[in-house]
Amino acid sequence: MTESVLDYMTRLGRAAREASRVTARASTAQKNNALLAAARALDAARAELIRANALDLDNGRANGLDEAMLDRLALTPARIDEMIEGLRQVATLPDPIGTIRDMRYLPSGIQVGKMRVPLGVIGIIYESRPNVTIDAASLCLKSGNATILRGGSEAIHSNRAIAACIQQGLAEAGLPAACVQVVETTDRAAVGALIAMPEFVDVIVPRGGKSLIERISRDARVPVIKHLDGICHVYIDAAADLDKAIRVADNAKTQRFAPCNTMETLLVHAAIAARVLPPLAAIYRAKGVELRGCAATRAILPEALAATEEDWLTEYNAPILSIRVVDSLEQAIDHINRYGSHHTDAIITENFTDARRFLTEVDSSSVMVNASTRFADGFEYGLGAEIGISTDKLHARGPVGLEGLTSEKYVVFGDGHVRG
Amino acid sequence: MTESVLDYMTRLGRAAREASRVTARASTAQKNNALLAAARALDAARAELIRANALDLDNGRANGLDEAMLDRLALTPARIDEMIEGLRQVATLPDPIGTIRDMRYLPSGIQVGKMRVPLGVIGIIYESRPNVTIDAASLCLKSGNATILRGGSEAIHSNRAIAACIQQGLAEAGLPAACVQVVETTDRAAVGALIAMPEFVDVIVPRGGKSLIERISRDARVPVIKHLDGICHVYIDAAADLDKAIRVADNAKTQRFAPCNTMETLLVHAAIAARVLPPLAAIYRAKGVELRGCAATRAILPEALAATEEDWLTEYNAPILSIRVVDSLEQAIDHINRYGSHHTDAIITENFTDARRFLTEVDSSSVMVNASTRFADGFEYGLGAEIGISTDKLHARGPVGLEGLTSEKYVVFGDGHVRG
Repeated sequence: MTESVLDYMTRLGRAAREASRVTARASTAQKNNALLAAARALDAARAELIRANALDLDNGRANGLDEAMLDRLALTPARIDEMIEGLRQVATLPDPIGTIRDMRYLPSGIQVGKMRVPLGVIGIIYESRPNVTIDAASLCLKSGNATILRGGSEAIHSNRAIAACIQQGLAEAGLPAACVQVVETTDRAAVGALIAMPEFVDVIVPRGGKSLIERISRDARVPVIKHLDGICHVYIDAAADLDKAIRVADNAKTQRFAPCNTMETLLVHAAIAARVLPPLAAIYRAKGVELRGCAATRAILPEALAATEEDWLTEYNAPILSIRVVDSLEQAIDHINRYGSHHTDAIITENFTDARRFLTEVDSSSVMVNASTRFADGFEYGLGAEIGISTDKLHARGPVGLEGLTSEKYVVFGDGHVRG
Repeated sequence: MTESVLDYMTRLGRAAREASRVTARASTAQKNNALLAAARALDAARAELIRANALDLDNGRANGLDEAMLDRLALTPARIDEMIEGLRQVATLPDPIGTIRDMRYLPSGIQVGKMRVPLGVIGIIYESRPNVTIDAASLCLKSGNATILRGGSEAIHSNRAIAACIQQGLAEAGLPAACVQVVETTDRAAVGALIAMPEFVDVIVPRGGKSLIERISRDARVPVIKHLDGICHVYIDAAADLDKAIRVADNAKTQRFAPCNTMETLLVHAAIAARVLPPLAAIYRAKGVELRGCAATRAILPEALAATEEDWLTEYNAPILSIRVVDSLEQAIDHINRYGSHHTDAIITENFTDARRFLTEVDSSSVMVNASTRFADGFEYGLGAEIGISTDKLHARGPVGLEGLTSEKYVVFGDGHVRG
């Protein structure tokens, strides 16, 4: 059985590599036509999508999936609307492929610049949410890549129904079916094969829980664009505006508790702690947020629990906030670089030099001044879409949109030039 | 013993991580001062460098290194001049760190852009040539990174003597010694440790033979900026200018035989083969280049040996050239994408549409029109320096200069903005 899964994945891989040559040179109009046709196909297949999804939901209930999992799995009419709208939005985005920049003449007389090109074949590995099938397929296609999608077994019927709509879109635009392939087997060996075919797959994007991403990163034989922890900080500087500090620290924690860009640790300069912590604590209390503080925090907020070293290293994804009072900007920066996950961190300050130092010295994919960490998002950054948020340093860092799914090659023009 | 090497490498790694926080915020002047002071130290240490190198050369001869290896190992006065000049040139390059680009306002009112930042800690693994110690250290320092250098055991005395000069430069500029560390042990376990410390090392750059690079890529637990084969092509299109075709095809093969950007396979359109191949063959014959051709080539050049499938896949690095006559531009592009190494490929043509298709459809890190593949080089491209040529697609592709040793993070400015 394992061997036949390997053969199956090799067949998908080879077909994807072939198809990637077609997507790479497909015109903008052709790619957009495929996206818009897939949107129309989704709209026409609503009943079928709901029916396929009901199968998955029934199986999920039978297999004891919890309510949160079932909710992520569910395709409602509103979620189908969102998928259709997503396809239309990706169609409106500028095509990054073929852009040539910085052509310039060099002393030898040659002209050198860079052209944006697709990565080739992108493997997406994800869990439960069937809408990822559309999000990922549309971004990869628009950026000129072929895709192999491996969703969770719990969503297999939904994903197949969505894939059929994508296939219809590709066919209408005259693009090969292998431009977007959904792995049809639920055998786990398929994942192992997908991440170990450097000859057919150029990059893997895992979307899901931390353990899935860690396992894939460890075993992959191709590069992985990955997102691990989001331990985000807001630092309220001595020179902070009190209103802005309260507004941002509230929003960064409470606007939503689960996202990766939600604040997990609040750092407050000792000089402002007594003024800013009590009103903030009142807000958090009203919103049901549990507070865990250092000794200096608890001297001001006696109701806070004692924070341990472990708290500074924890992504709660829950209504819990750790708070630490620091003596200096340096201490805040050190704390963030040491305990944070290099995701998103913000300073609240009116001091120009403190802001400048924070921006330079905090080693995170997004650094902010006087803005909520919740803005760290491809849509909020104007990328038009997002395949994920990378906490890596190489290639793509922070929210990854179309450009993160591309690369640049050098182009050189001459007139018979040779090297002397 | 192995455990103590691991402890030793862990100590270097931890020190490098600490030092990378200092190099990341070092001013341009401070970094340049260190480079210029190291140049002065090298100039003052000429006798010592030659003495240390003589030890390595003696050991090399005793250990039976061949002449080519010994030549690469040798430090001559001229090579010391080159190292000094290299340091001075890197000091004159613009500092990439801290550049902010594309700051723009978004509908929410926040302002978002990108700031160029160092990667962190870079591990360099290389063989024989001691000048790499200077090249790599200077590029990494200028780009704000800390470096761990692991040269070959055959060059250990030379590398130590060079490292002492770098240390003097760092000290004069007030930078910590751990900004540039040379691995002092020749134990091979040091390499294994260096490539498996993601907590301390952000990227590995191997410089050396293909087997070294393959081994490191396979075993590394951190990203590798690597360069494998250079199987480069020149395609002489039906619409080529005959003089340009001959000039470029001559230069691409014969200017130097060993470099990775030297042409290994010449592709010629059938419509022009009978006119271009005989004069080219005369040039190659005069320069001692062995020709291996397809059947159509041998019909025109009976003296050519028969090329096999294996020839299309071979990087000769030698005065050997394989030649294939193709029937169309498509066939040439297919051959390059199938047999090439995605390094550097050129078309010779006067036809605009053929040039445009070649540029778009050839999937290589450098694609050229009417220019010699020998131009694929950081200096020729105006990067001012080069740490290597990447045949990867992610992160850096083609010649890698200072920018390839950096990344970008998002910066966000607000005025107390929160997400609604």
